[in-house]
Amino acid sequence: MSGGDAYVVSDRTRVKRKPGRGVYDKEAVHSILDEAFLCHVGYVGKDGQPFVIPTAYARVGEKLYLHGAASNYLLKTLKTGAPVCVTVTIMDGLVLARSTFHHSMNYRSVVILGSAEPVTDASEKNAALEAIVEHIVPGRSAEARSPTGPELTATSVVSLTLSEVSAKCRSGPPIDDKPDMALPVWAGVLPFDSLAGIGQPQPDPLLEPGIDVPPSVAHYTRPSAKQAGK
Amino acid sequence: MSGGDAYVVSDRTRVKRKPGRGVYDKEAVHSILDEAFLCHVGYVGKDGQPFVIPTAYARVGEKLYLHGAASNYLLKTLKTGAPVCVTVTIMDGLVLARSTFHHSMNYRSVVILGSAEPVTDASEKNAALEAIVEHIVPGRSAEARSPTGPELTATSVVSLTLSEVSAKCRSGPPIDDKPDMALPVWAGVLPFDSLAGIGQPQPDPLLEPGIDVPPSVAHYTRPSAKQAGK
Repeated sequence: MSGGDAYVVSDRTRVKRKPGRGVYDKEAVHSILDEAFLCHVGYVGKDGQPFVIPTAYARVGEKLYLHGAASNYLLKTLKTGAPVCVTVTIMDGLVLARSTFHHSMNYRSVVILGSAEPVTDASEKNAALEAIVEHIVPGRSAEARSPTGPELTATSVVSLTLSEVSAKCRSGPPIDDKPDMALPVWAGVLPFDSLAGIGQPQPDPLLEPGIDVPPSVAHYTRPSAKQAGK
Repeated sequence: MSGGDAYVVSDRTRVKRKPGRGVYDKEAVHSILDEAFLCHVGYVGKDGQPFVIPTAYARVGEKLYLHGAASNYLLKTLKTGAPVCVTVTIMDGLVLARSTFHHSMNYRSVVILGSAEPVTDASEKNAALEAIVEHIVPGRSAEARSPTGPELTATSVVSLTLSEVSAKCRSGPPIDDKPDMALPVWAGVLPFDSLAGIGQPQPDPLLEPGIDVPPSVAHYTRPSAKQAGK
C-alpha cells in the first residue's frame, strides 16, 4: 500500500461506508486479483433484472479477461459492451467481538466497473486463454493439449480494462465499544486460509497407468495472502 | 436430490448452458445456502450500472436474510424492493483435463432472483440477526452481548423469499474428448475443502486474561460438503 500508482477514484468507486477500508492502490488491487481466481460478474438482464454469475478470470497488466462458451448468455451480453460489475472477494477470517453488533469479517474485495470488449485478435485471445489456465493452475498450459481451431471458435473471450476500480479490506482484531471491554466474553479472529483447503489430487478413474501427478498439481499453491496488501 | 419439493422453474432461472447441471430441488438448494455464509448481491444502480457486493446472510425456512448498517447504500436500495440477485458459490475443486479446453471447476452455486422486503417487525428482526450470527458461528449468540435498542435501530434487515431459485453444480472427474484419452497427460481433480482452511483462533490482543476460547470457536465447523447434494 506504499505510494505506488493508484486508480482514479470516481463517485461510483469511492468506498462510502467505512471509507477507511477503501484501497485504490494498483499494487494492492492486483495482489487481490492475483490471489483469487473466482469472480462474480453482475450484468443487467431483461426488465432491469440484475444477474450475478460466478466465473474464472485472469489479470494481464491492466486488463481482466473472462471467457466462456460462445453460446453462453453471459458472454453474449458482455460482448455487447453492456455495463458490468466484476467483484472478487477473499474471506480471511471471522471477527468475533464481545458484542454481536461488532461481529465482522476480515476480507479483501475488489469491485471493477466498466464495459467489456470482445477479444477477437487471435494472438490476444490465445494469450488470454493461456493466462486464465496459468492463473488458476500455474504451469498447466505446458502440460495439457492446447486448444484447436474449432475449440477457439467455440470460446468467447472478453477483456475489461481496470480503470474504475476499488478495493475494500478489513483486517485485524474486533473493535468493541469501550463499555464492553470488561465483559467476560472471548473476542478475537478465527482465520480462514484458502491455501490450506487444498486436498490430495484425485486422478481421473480413466487415467492411463504410469502417468505421474505433474508439477503443476504436486506443487500447487496460491500467492500468499501475506503479500496481498494486508 | 431425491424427489423432494422443488422450486418452480421460470424462464429466468432455468439453467440454459449445460442444463444437466441445473438443480431445483429445495433440499439441495438449502444445503448449499447452509454450508456457505458469504453471498454476492447484485443490484442496479444509477444509469443502469450493476453493482455486486459481498455480504453475509442466513436462511430461515424459505427466507434469506441480509443485514447491514441502516446507512448502507446496498441496504437502502434493497429496502425499496428493487430487483435483486443473490448468488452463493462454493468452489469444490479444480478439474484438470487432458486438453486445456475441457478444464473446469467443481462447484455448487445458487442464484436467487426477486425483490427484498424490509424486516420491521421487532421479533422477526431480532430473530433474523440472531440467525445470521448463528449461521456463521453456531453457538455464538449465547456467548456474546445481545444487540441494544440503538444498535438494532442502526441496523437494517431485509428478507428475500426463496421463490425464483436455481442451483448449478458440477462434480466428478474431467470429461475429455475420446481422441485425447490416450494422451500422456495427467488428468483429475484437485479438491478444495473450505473446512480445512480454518486456522487457529487469534485472541484479541486486548482480551482480558483468563478468558478461554469458547465452544463456538474451539469446535468450529461448517456443514459437511458431503451432505450438500454432491
